[in-house]
Amino acid sequence: MARLYHLPLSPFCRKVRLILAEKRIEAALIEEKPWERRADFRRLSPSGQVPALVERDGTAICDSVAIVEYLEETRPDPPLLPTHAVERAEARRVAQWFDVKFHTEVTTHLLHERVYKRMRGEGYPDSNIIRVGAANLRAHLNYISWLAANRRWLAGEAMSIADFAAAAHLSVLDYTGDVPWDQALAAKDWYARIKSRPAFRDILADRTSGLPPAPHYDDLDF
Amino acid sequence: MARLYHLPLSPFCRKVRLILAEKRIEAALIEEKPWERRADFRRLSPSGQVPALVERDGTAICDSVAIVEYLEETRPDPPLLPTHAVERAEARRVAQWFDVKFHTEVTTHLLHERVYKRMRGEGYPDSNIIRVGAANLRAHLNYISWLAANRRWLAGEAMSIADFAAAAHLSVLDYTGDVPWDQALAAKDWYARIKSRPAFRDILADRTSGLPPAPHYDDLDF
Repeated sequence: MARLYHLPLSPFCRKVRLILAEKRIEAALIEEKPWERRADFRRLSPSGQVPALVERDGTAICDSVAIVEYLEETRPDPPLLPTHAVERAEARRVAQWFDVKFHTEVTTHLLHERVYKRMRGEGYPDSNIIRVGAANLRAHLNYISWLAANRRWLAGEAMSIADFAAAAHLSVLDYTGDVPWDQALAAKDWYARIKSRPAFRDILADRTSGLPPAPHYDDLDF
Repeated sequence: MARLYHLPLSPFCRKVRLILAEKRIEAALIEEKPWERRADFRRLSPSGQVPALVERDGTAICDSVAIVEYLEETRPDPPLLPTHAVERAEARRVAQWFDVKFHTEVTTHLLHERVYKRMRGEGYPDSNIIRVGAANLRAHLNYISWLAANRRWLAGEAMSIADFAAAAHLSVLDYTGDVPWDQALAAKDWYARIKSRPAFRDILADRTSGLPPAPHYDDLDF
């Protein structure tokens, strides 16, 4: 069986977990805390970052963007990129929007303050940083609502890597109870659709010790 | 002719320009300052960011990762990704290393302090931030030297998107004279090889007003 070195609340790891599950690829999950800088893990992942996917033959594939493309090339069924090059570019653009722009403007602020500071013993959350992340999140939810109101899925007619990238980030912020869903109903409707897929079950069962999820986290009718 | 909306000293724009040139695709360059938030440009690029590639028929492709994959799919000659999935993953991993890790740890520090602050009238460079960027750059140069000493190109036997991503970032820092090449000779040898390619000519002719390049910037025997 393949192995995935991951952190439960990392959006990049969750994106890969969701895509593995959607493609029905079994992988053993191994929790890895990158800040512990384990030498054995550095031999697998040159950057020291998660996720890292290790195939049965020991081949390691690192970096979530590279892993997603690799899975699409080696396990194309079901496809999570469209057929036409322009539509594929749109799926990748929206995925990158979440992995880069949303991550920089929202996830890092909220996740670092609420989760990683606690895990690493770095003190209390800074409420100013949380306020900035929350304000940026509202702007991004409006963009998701706009996409979801104009398209069946975030990047077009078919579900794609864009939906899983977006859902991965939002699922982490939903764990901490930071998503004001009722202010973005089209976004909420899209998230309810992807949250109810079998591929999401594992993510909804995640529990981080000392940090219980928001009450609606695993509720499909949130 | 296609059009590329870009900023001359943006590493993400330079990566796309280098790959366009390597694939001998002509594109008119249009300088776009994202911080001016032009409404016409926002209609092309939803994130408001450069680069944005506009095809002759008006189709806009945004985000540098999406553009690079799109060019590889629509103009595969010469290929800048290997054939085998594991090798393709390695090329993407190394490209992402530069676009994410190197960018966060090095380029943003040095480029923001030395270039963008001046362009946007935000005051003088902060020497502490420049020191952090310079220290991180030395660590990354060691990694490039290690890759370059163990492989013909950064991601394997063939030149790939990894080399152009890395060269794009380094070329910007070479413009500002921030790269201590003599401390990383294998990296210097690799950079000399890619710098002497015809695809690099355009980049070496870039001049930003009020900010002349380091004297060796366009010298192929630096």
